[in-house]
Amino acid sequence: MDVLTYLEQHFPEDLEAVRAYLRQPSISYTGEGIKETAEMTAQMIVDVGGTAQVIPIEGHHPLVYGRLDEGADHTLLYYSMYDVMPAEEPDWTSPPFAAEIVDLPKYGKAIINRGAVNTKGPTAAFFRALRAYKAVRGKLPVNLIFIVEGEEEMGSRAFNKFVPENKDLFKGAEACLFPFFQQDEALRPYMWLGTKGILYFELTCRGGDWGGPYARGIHGSIAAGVHNPVWRLIRALATMTGPDDAILVKGLGEGAVGISAKERAEMEANADLFNEEDYLNFYEVKKFKWPLKGIDLWEKMFTTPTLNIDGIWGGYYGPGTKTLLPHEASVKMDVRMVPNMDPDQTVAAIRKHLDDHGYADIQMNVLNKYPWSKVSIDEPVVQAMLQTYKQLGYRVKVEPINLGSAPYWIFERVLGIPYITGGLGHGSRQHSSNEYCTVQGILDFEKSMVLFLENYPKLAAAKGIRD
Amino acid sequence: MDVLTYLEQHFPEDLEAVRAYLRQPSISYTGEGIKETAEMTAQMIVDVGGTAQVIPIEGHHPLVYGRLDEGADHTLLYYSMYDVMPAEEPDWTSPPFAAEIVDLPKYGKAIINRGAVNTKGPTAAFFRALRAYKAVRGKLPVNLIFIVEGEEEMGSRAFNKFVPENKDLFKGAEACLFPFFQQDEALRPYMWLGTKGILYFELTCRGGDWGGPYARGIHGSIAAGVHNPVWRLIRALATMTGPDDAILVKGLGEGAVGISAKERAEMEANADLFNEEDYLNFYEVKKFKWPLKGIDLWEKMFTTPTLNIDGIWGGYYGPGTKTLLPHEASVKMDVRMVPNMDPDQTVAAIRKHLDDHGYADIQMNVLNKYPWSKVSIDEPVVQAMLQTYKQLGYRVKVEPINLGSAPYWIFERVLGIPYITGGLGHGSRQHSSNEYCTVQGILDFEKSMVLFLENYPKLAAAKGIRD
Repeated sequence: MDVLTYLEQHFPEDLEAVRAYLRQPSISYTGEGIKETAEMTAQMIVDVGGTAQVIPIEGHHPLVYGRLDEGADHTLLYYSMYDVMPAEEPDWTSPPFAAEIVDLPKYGKAIINRGAVNTKGPTAAFFRALRAYKAVRGKLPVNLIFIVEGEEEMGSRAFNKFVPENKDLFKGAEACLFPFFQQDEALRPYMWLGTKGILYFELTCRGGDWGGPYARGIHGSIAAGVHNPVWRLIRALATMTGPDDAILVKGLGEGAVGISAKERAEMEANADLFNEEDYLNFYEVKKFKWPLKGIDLWEKMFTTPTLNIDGIWGGYYGPGTKTLLPHEASVKMDVRMVPNMDPDQTVAAIRKHLDDHGYADIQMNVLNKYPWSKVSIDEPVVQAMLQTYKQLGYRVKVEPINLGSAPYWIFERVLGIPYITGGLGHGSRQHSSNEYCTVQGILDFEKSMVLFLENYPKLAAAKGIRD
Repeated sequence: MDVLTYLEQHFPEDLEAVRAYLRQPSISYTGEGIKETAEMTAQMIVDVGGTAQVIPIEGHHPLVYGRLDEGADHTLLYYSMYDVMPAEEPDWTSPPFAAEIVDLPKYGKAIINRGAVNTKGPTAAFFRALRAYKAVRGKLPVNLIFIVEGEEEMGSRAFNKFVPENKDLFKGAEACLFPFFQQDEALRPYMWLGTKGILYFELTCRGGDWGGPYARGIHGSIAAGVHNPVWRLIRALATMTGPDDAILVKGLGEGAVGISAKERAEMEANADLFNEEDYLNFYEVKKFKWPLKGIDLWEKMFTTPTLNIDGIWGGYYGPGTKTLLPHEASVKMDVRMVPNMDPDQTVAAIRKHLDDHGYADIQMNVLNKYPWSKVSIDEPVVQAMLQTYKQLGYRVKVEPINLGSAPYWIFERVLGIPYITGGLGHGSRQHSSNEYCTVQGILDFEKSMVLFLENYPKLAAAKGIRD
């Protein structure tokens, strides 16, 4: 029997298996269900014939590591995560861990659940695809090494430390696959040839030698003669960006390079897939920062570093009219770094900007940073995914880089292997209420994984890659 | 027997009466104990021979109104409040409603309780002073009209509405007394010849036609091409003040006048009482906004309008590194208005400033506003309090205006009568944990109230004021 037909016939079981995995909470920030989910994930590796272990990391959520040696010529590294964001938003229409199936006007049947798309839906479905493959064919066409982290939503700290210190565990892997529901809101598959790097930091302005209350918030009337740290923070921040949020920090963006001619050509060849209106409508935004159109707009988004404010807080923000002269105020900010920006140089540029503008007292606390990464469109692992989409009847939107960030520099620079994020399937509202994935997408995803696993070793062999 | 001696002999009973009143919670924001405390307050008026009623105000906490006609030539309006702030601070060393007596290193025995100083301590002690006076002399030297509000901590809304609509209830009152523990941290009595007005408002910047997400916070990576409302709010705020938090809003401060030569002379005559170091140490601040010294510094604080940020919030400010492009950000701000600024003109100036700088989309929501008020040092009610302090051996720090705000424009402009806040006694940490008043201060306060009630009618008669 054909594996794709087998998947269709056994889909009701697969759907229930995915829902069961989703119902198990695994909240990164609180630790709720982390241990249980790590064990469930290891068990999924064992259930397809592999070996697996839950690796405790002191002070962090455990990693799940496993191997599945099928005696094949080629070996892929499977990367994913088993943690999810909290689900405290008040406007969930279904409970966030009930995996209820609802009818979405645009997409038909869909599962509502935290992690449905990011990333427990794809993870569970991937193992169901492996199970189907083995049920029909006995063996997979590739060997797999598995690494599944439990802190992706908190910056992949344990993962980023563990892999460089344990490179031997990943020896033999030729390329990395991160399975994901990669169909956008118009159900078009898209692909990233890299990810931006991220620097996440807090700035805090407190009263001190410069003035302002240094120990506690005091009565607002004292502002008659005493400086306010919130005003100081605001004036400091206002020196950092201009209109259009353009970065005014000298040296921030140093080294930034554009995209290649080949990447630009790939975008132009599929220009109809880069739809600004769809994008604005989806994110509920009325206009972009710049009056650009088409590929020029997208190229700017892919190549311009961003200095974003994620949050700001200070003083009193409860109900009513409490008057207060606060003693401190803070912002959370992130820089998205494009090739070839350097994280440490970026930190230094921001620190120097504050110092040069007279704000040496403002404290900068770096919470996370890792560099950008890139992969060539010519890599077999990329071509195998492109071929998969084509076999299933889809054109692909190929973006030179992911606007978001992921620690794929670990693959590219630490393990020295190319990587691909991919798979059919659609979901959205990750990090928001009512995160969902479509039911049809789960089946389509399974099929795409089967084809990808068959495509990769052929293309790798053609290029002469050996295990 | 002399009334002051009577007070000394009966002080243990008075202390217990004050503690009993303090133990009854009366939390403005939650309504806890409000009804019970209003009734206790009315009963205190009845207990000294007056008539009293608890006046319900729809949607507000009730007012307590009463009269005590002693057949005297002169009549004072007694104003106070029976509500207190919440007491949820985690670091109370005694329960906030147990009225425990502790030993303070600097002040000796003191009662720890929410409202000990602001303002249920003075209120309860005032009625004990009246009771003593009547026990010794039979009748008070003045008639009293009482108004005690229950929403002072929420902006005196019911009071501000009720008094102008019921002026007849206050007919005959020549001046207003607000009894309070007016000895500062060095146990020096101080006096205000007015209060600043206040405008309390929120500014909110949301995504909209100008750009930015307008419906919900979205993934931080989208900031690559989409404006951030937090940046916009920061740039708007940065146009409003310069270094030293100086106000750059055109027309904000229009009409502001300085203090009178007489007020300046009064300050200079007591220059040693205006101690900058004590003030900075008390509030835990290292320096003032300006390099001024002595009376010049204080005059600037009394005469410069202030644009303060009470709080700012927007986006994500929980733990960790969530990346977010927020759809809105807000600030709570207050303007302290000096004579002769106008609240409506101040609102209009801020609105116009935002509009003129291209921020017409930023929403301004006024939560509270009322004007400044002033009283002449020559008024008998002021002179009666000054004389009281002198009789009890104190010099007085006379400030031309209170840096804070209180709705005394109601007395000055609605009822057309002068007013004084006064009394010996010391307490502090209002609106904070471990609010306290000293035990000795309660007795001193009682004595000062007795002398004040005797001084006032003599000075009023000398000036020719008739009931």
